[in-house]
Amino acid sequence: MACCCPKSIIEDILKARDGVVENVYFVACGGSYAGLYPAKFFLQSEAKKLRVDHYTANEFCHATPKSLNKNSIVITQSHSGTTPETVRAAKIAQEVGAASITITFDDQSPLAKNGDYVMKYEAGAPTSMGGTAFALKLATEILNQVEGYEFYESMKTGFERIDGIVKNAKEFLTPRAKKFAEEYKDEKLIYMMGSGANYHTAYSFAICLLMEMQWINSSAIHSGEYFHGPFEITDRNTPFIILMSEGRTRPLDQRALDFLKQYAEKLIILDAKELGLETIDDCVSEFFNPLLMGAALGNYSYELSIARKHPLSTRRYMWKLQY
Amino acid sequence: MACCCPKSIIEDILKARDGVVENVYFVACGGSYAGLYPAKFFLQSEAKKLRVDHYTANEFCHATPKSLNKNSIVITQSHSGTTPETVRAAKIAQEVGAASITITFDDQSPLAKNGDYVMKYEAGAPTSMGGTAFALKLATEILNQVEGYEFYESMKTGFERIDGIVKNAKEFLTPRAKKFAEEYKDEKLIYMMGSGANYHTAYSFAICLLMEMQWINSSAIHSGEYFHGPFEITDRNTPFIILMSEGRTRPLDQRALDFLKQYAEKLIILDAKELGLETIDDCVSEFFNPLLMGAALGNYSYELSIARKHPLSTRRYMWKLQY
Repeated sequence: MACCCPKSIIEDILKARDGVVENVYFVACGGSYAGLYPAKFFLQSEAKKLRVDHYTANEFCHATPKSLNKNSIVITQSHSGTTPETVRAAKIAQEVGAASITITFDDQSPLAKNGDYVMKYEAGAPTSMGGTAFALKLATEILNQVEGYEFYESMKTGFERIDGIVKNAKEFLTPRAKKFAEEYKDEKLIYMMGSGANYHTAYSFAICLLMEMQWINSSAIHSGEYFHGPFEITDRNTPFIILMSEGRTRPLDQRALDFLKQYAEKLIILDAKELGLETIDDCVSEFFNPLLMGAALGNYSYELSIARKHPLSTRRYMWKLQY
Repeated sequence: MACCCPKSIIEDILKARDGVVENVYFVACGGSYAGLYPAKFFLQSEAKKLRVDHYTANEFCHATPKSLNKNSIVITQSHSGTTPETVRAAKIAQEVGAASITITFDDQSPLAKNGDYVMKYEAGAPTSMGGTAFALKLATEILNQVEGYEFYESMKTGFERIDGIVKNAKEFLTPRAKKFAEEYKDEKLIYMMGSGANYHTAYSFAICLLMEMQWINSSAIHSGEYFHGPFEITDRNTPFIILMSEGRTRPLDQRALDFLKQYAEKLIILDAKELGLETIDDCVSEFFNPLLMGAALGNYSYELSIARKHPLSTRRYMWKLQY
């Protein structure tokens, strides 16, 4: 069933299960896996009863959790809808009678065929109608319909505002992104840092944009983990991009930033506060960090690819080999 | 209460809560955070009802999940027992009436003071009596006492066998570790890879041993994520250490290894199958991967520190600055 209304999807799923949903699994690979993290973080933080987990698809397929049952929702995502592990994960969900919701660009894809519900996003869709937002909307609906959610209306308002915030932020950041690209184009390694809902935004930029699309070494460091190991590699020559979140985990980012300002010289700061996320209600604004930061980082990867004369579509292995 | 009997601790916690425990949180920083992951992975895989999560401590403190309640168990770990974020996390647990179990080397430490139960490990304790094993034993007891666990006896046998397996593995690996250290001592970056329960063993080696103690750049790549971005940085000059798990996620490691053997030349393989983990029952052996691999990797970091003339205790910032 192709449908873009998360509310109806969750109503339908609950109706078929006498109102009982116990488990929510977010399952995908790479950038799509990272794109589901904000929804997982939201439920992990806000739900009082629901069980929630986040799996890279092949681990879900091979080490399927014993809690997976018919009172479960499995949300999968793949842009092309052809990622074999993710296609298989959605099938496993269906086989046990769990509700399978798939998020994809292609609603005729193998993944879509394994979805009881398909949320299709369009090419160039605004942030509020992209895959990451779809997953977060689904999470919001699940929480509200299963347990009730006191900030449901604030979330709705957040989704209404995010596209305007993103548009302004991208315009604002264009000159900064160009400057970054010129200054950092010869770096062999760039570390990413973030916390809270943003952690996998940092991860996605590290593994997809830097490693996959630019062949630059990288790693995503959680701001809260920085002082427990990674900070010892900090020096004047090692570049960091830090995502400063709006919300409860900002003190983690701030502590890392204060240190970086003293001991690192190659430092790029993307600050949700400066980019207008404060216009969303405080009680939910942190959950929108990844929607803003993911879009904002798009400027940085685009400009980097231009400055390095290395198109984002260039690959060594992908699309060229069987693996 | 200082106690090293996980069975009694969980019996006591359940008795005080009329048999109801709903949530288990594993909370720590850095290497201790990684050390709790095998227990989290075990419950995530095996539990049918229990909710489980794994937090870096400062995120738990600042973005405390709303599900935390008196029917929760919070398991924290810190070697010195002084890590401020972890000390605070245990306090938060106590304040809401959750059971606070602390794992530490110092049972008079601030962390121990915030524990309703303290599991103290000794210096140079065998693997089965170290912090990572304590957490896994607690997880096994929680699952067995709350839901019942069909492979409980197999887990007990596994704990009995692991020290012998580790001892043999460490002897077997000594010459290989020396060879690794000589060949890789000038590398500026080494990637770690693993899956399943081993994922945070790879993480721990990346952030604590390589980044913190040797100032070598690193990142832990999940074997299941390798083909979804990171593999594009693979070439003849980029070193990888891959942890080959025993158990259900081995096919993920194998697929990555097959690719690495074709396109990488600097490749170190630690294989649980070759190191004797097969002598533990198949139904649970995978949960012992990190106990074996963590100990085995100890050889590699030790030999690296000798070859590089960079003692494992050398720091740039830790113990020298306020941060």
